[in-house]
Amino acid sequence: MRILGIDPGLQVTGYGLIDQQADGCRLVEGGVIRSDSKCELAVRLQQIYAGLVQMLAELQPDIIVVEDLYSKYRHPRTAILMGHARGVIYLAAAQQGIPVCAYPASLVKKAMVGYGRATKSQVAAMVCQRLHLRTAPTPADVTDALALALCHTSALRGELGTHRKLPAAIQEALQTRRT
Amino acid sequence: MRILGIDPGLQVTGYGLIDQQADGCRLVEGGVIRSDSKCELAVRLQQIYAGLVQMLAELQPDIIVVEDLYSKYRHPRTAILMGHARGVIYLAAAQQGIPVCAYPASLVKKAMVGYGRATKSQVAAMVCQRLHLRTAPTPADVTDALALALCHTSALRGELGTHRKLPAAIQEALQTRRT
Repeated sequence: MRILGIDPGLQVTGYGLIDQQADGCRLVEGGVIRSDSKCELAVRLQQIYAGLVQMLAELQPDIIVVEDLYSKYRHPRTAILMGHARGVIYLAAAQQGIPVCAYPASLVKKAMVGYGRATKSQVAAMVCQRLHLRTAPTPADVTDALALALCHTSALRGELGTHRKLPAAIQEALQTRRT
Repeated sequence: MRILGIDPGLQVTGYGLIDQQADGCRLVEGGVIRSDSKCELAVRLQQIYAGLVQMLAELQPDIIVVEDLYSKYRHPRTAILMGHARGVIYLAAAQQGIPVCAYPASLVKKAMVGYGRATKSQVAAMVCQRLHLRTAPTPADVTDALALALCHTSALRGELGTHRKLPAAIQEALQTRRT
């Protein structure tokens, strides 16, 4: 099963693909999609969308995992621009029939480190451990994306508690893709 | 010149198309694109995108006008979801080569009523007056979209002050489309 974590941003969208196998997880690919900050917003979103469409076609993930939205943001304007990027990610996923799953940041930290308020470096250390990497991938957006993908494997193993079951539509989509 | 105002929202995206002629503005069409709130976010964005693509192809606007982002929002989560819808609007516009222009809400109010803190009903009354309508179109998203389109005509006439000049890229796009 191929799980693609995506950390959306107007400037930098990080992604990380892992392969879940019987004996653990393997890193397949990680990288970033950048938009040209000198271009207008519409062109930048088109750049992100084009990068995504190509990446999804190449990597063929079974599921995409993103971070859930918060209720508060320190920089609302930046968050809304991130929402623009997140919007085209959802769109590209829907167009290719790939389900999207969202986990709150605290749950990702809990799944990775065992503690919902873990630091970024603690999460990065666990990403390295679980994927047998010497150093955490840079920029940090890639590591964040990989943490999301790894969090999903915990969800699939039922380690996140029964209150965090996958939505029925996603379960169904996964089963369809598996059979 | 055909100016399309769009008021984006995940639930309801209002739009209004006006035709700017020598003797004033004429309402061409107004309406809404709705997404099904029972569907997942990805599917809803796909619904909005599909509605937009079809609408843009039919209406063939020369320019799209949206409201600029604020720096503060009372409901950040709702604002970010609006950002998702706004993202697919920008994408659809870029894909069809239609320039997008954004004006702050206060400027729209000033252009319509002469006062940057005008009420919604004052703006609606001016939309009716300028487009020779008896009552303001409903839902309010359509009237808001028409106000955006009308604001752009004020900008084109240079009524919004020199500090609000159109970006060079948009000016160029407009000139290309005119010739």
